[in-house]
Amino acid sequence: MTTRIGKYTISLNQKPAIAGFGSAVGEKEGQGPLQEWFDNIYDDMHLGQKTWEAAESALMTSAISTAIFKSGTPKEDVNAIFAGDLLDQSIATTFGIKEFEIPVVGLYGACSTMALSLCMASLMVNSKIMDCAVAATSSHFCTAERQFRFPLEYGSKCTPTSQRTATASGAAVIKLDGDGPYINSVTLGKIVDFNITDANNMGAAMAPAARDTFNNFFFDTNTGPKDYDLILTGDLGSIGSELLYRLIEDDHPDFQSKHKDCGNLIYDPSDKSIIAGGSGCGCSAAVLCSYICDRMRTGHYKKVLFCGTGALLSPTSTQQGLSIPGIAHLVELTNTK
Amino acid sequence: MTTRIGKYTISLNQKPAIAGFGSAVGEKEGQGPLQEWFDNIYDDMHLGQKTWEAAESALMTSAISTAIFKSGTPKEDVNAIFAGDLLDQSIATTFGIKEFEIPVVGLYGACSTMALSLCMASLMVNSKIMDCAVAATSSHFCTAERQFRFPLEYGSKCTPTSQRTATASGAAVIKLDGDGPYINSVTLGKIVDFNITDANNMGAAMAPAARDTFNNFFFDTNTGPKDYDLILTGDLGSIGSELLYRLIEDDHPDFQSKHKDCGNLIYDPSDKSIIAGGSGCGCSAAVLCSYICDRMRTGHYKKVLFCGTGALLSPTSTQQGLSIPGIAHLVELTNTK
Repeated sequence: MTTRIGKYTISLNQKPAIAGFGSAVGEKEGQGPLQEWFDNIYDDMHLGQKTWEAAESALMTSAISTAIFKSGTPKEDVNAIFAGDLLDQSIATTFGIKEFEIPVVGLYGACSTMALSLCMASLMVNSKIMDCAVAATSSHFCTAERQFRFPLEYGSKCTPTSQRTATASGAAVIKLDGDGPYINSVTLGKIVDFNITDANNMGAAMAPAARDTFNNFFFDTNTGPKDYDLILTGDLGSIGSELLYRLIEDDHPDFQSKHKDCGNLIYDPSDKSIIAGGSGCGCSAAVLCSYICDRMRTGHYKKVLFCGTGALLSPTSTQQGLSIPGIAHLVELTNTK
Repeated sequence: MTTRIGKYTISLNQKPAIAGFGSAVGEKEGQGPLQEWFDNIYDDMHLGQKTWEAAESALMTSAISTAIFKSGTPKEDVNAIFAGDLLDQSIATTFGIKEFEIPVVGLYGACSTMALSLCMASLMVNSKIMDCAVAATSSHFCTAERQFRFPLEYGSKCTPTSQRTATASGAAVIKLDGDGPYINSVTLGKIVDFNITDANNMGAAMAPAARDTFNNFFFDTNTGPKDYDLILTGDLGSIGSELLYRLIEDDHPDFQSKHKDCGNLIYDPSDKSIIAGGSGCGCSAAVLCSYICDRMRTGHYKKVLFCGTGALLSPTSTQQGLSIPGIAHLVELTNTK
């Protein structure tokens, strides 16, 4: 059923399918280059809700509902939802999924959570523990700013390394059969701590973890960047991507030529308000569960590595002067079984 | 390998073993009736660390190290740690496990997290996705008070329904073979919202979710309380337990006679500072991974249901006047394969 390849990578012999995918984003994300691929674009940052937190929950509800609908699966047939977000106690997830009345596995991996939820959901389906599982994450610019940084009303300036938390959610329905893309293998990441302490430079905190997971995957599978059409990270942003190139070039000099980052894909490159790209665990979820899955179905991309990268910090750890460890989980996608 | 029984319950045909278990607790927990079963008791609430958060991380490190040691498994053979805590962005877990350099699946289920981590770890081992997985959680009275309620320095009085967050961590090493107890089946819970809004009455928020999961399990397996030596919840406390009896007595009038709650077991019943029992996701972890596992190995208990119950609130959701949904995950344990 599942076979461990090397120390870290698990091969899924059934190649479970992303049978349906859905995305929901805010206004700025909806004005970006991926506009035509997003399912639901909301111009109101409140999505008609009283609070930004409730708006983030509504984004997740929207993405999951769309993914389930597009998969053609009755909601009652979903065995579990694997989901998480960036808010304290994953509260956006709680209120975003409770109306589905489906068993829940709450996950936390900061911005790596979409990759982690895909890992867990696909392992469950491949081993026939579940027939159908949903993977989903969300984030919201306004909820993240006031939780991790400053109240928006302060009008704080961004530092040159800061990434904008995307107002976005993405969801994937995993089943044994479906139109794909298909999940070929997964690699779970270790926590890697390079003693970065600048909470406005999360790319630097995550890049060493991304290198660790990529190196483990390439070693375990005896492959390299040349074997893939696209290597997608989410979300290192522009600074973190550059750091990753420097960290990995000795081992894999062709890495950069295959690499894109969801945080760099989601916003209009001419938008001066975006500094070092996007972030937030809804960013990579929305980019994967729209443009990337669609481009794989049409055959534009055939073999894709999707690596979610998370910065494991909290306001408390930042105030206490602690380092920001990183983590990265990886999913190997193919467009045929 | 794994078989779904009914809609919610998954049977584990290999009956994976808790091959090693470890516990680490604070002074007050160490003075309670389970004193002789705890592995590591720390009289210093700081565990020699600079902050309470770092102390909570050290508790988790202590419990996991002990569990791995007692299982006789080299650390290098552990495929993944499934872990979580109550703090924002699960920061106690991040710093509690990073030194192990083992892949991590971060989980969030409030006080249900130990049951959730046991569900995930045992499913992975039963399906041979992993040879060895660790399940662990932690909580700390001082970190939880200042995060969820008031700074300790305020000297706030407790309400009559309040539960004390246990300073505790528990860890279990799951493998196909070992001395046990053994995991026979698991039931993942749905979010259940009874519109409780009192953040000092979490028992009331969790009891309806516990009823839902117990009823799903009993229905799926065609069993009832009479078929088990012990039905253990963690942690409804005294108020939540009484509420659960009222909610479930029509369906299962013999439930109360088999039931104990980890929040009621961990503290000295004569301690006047304990109001409605203990809570915190380390509470049930430490009780299970000491007294209960030991009593199952000696044959005192043969069939045990362990149901973790979580109150899905955050300081933000409380301040916004939202309800507190509950969730409960269940693990069926036996003392023979």
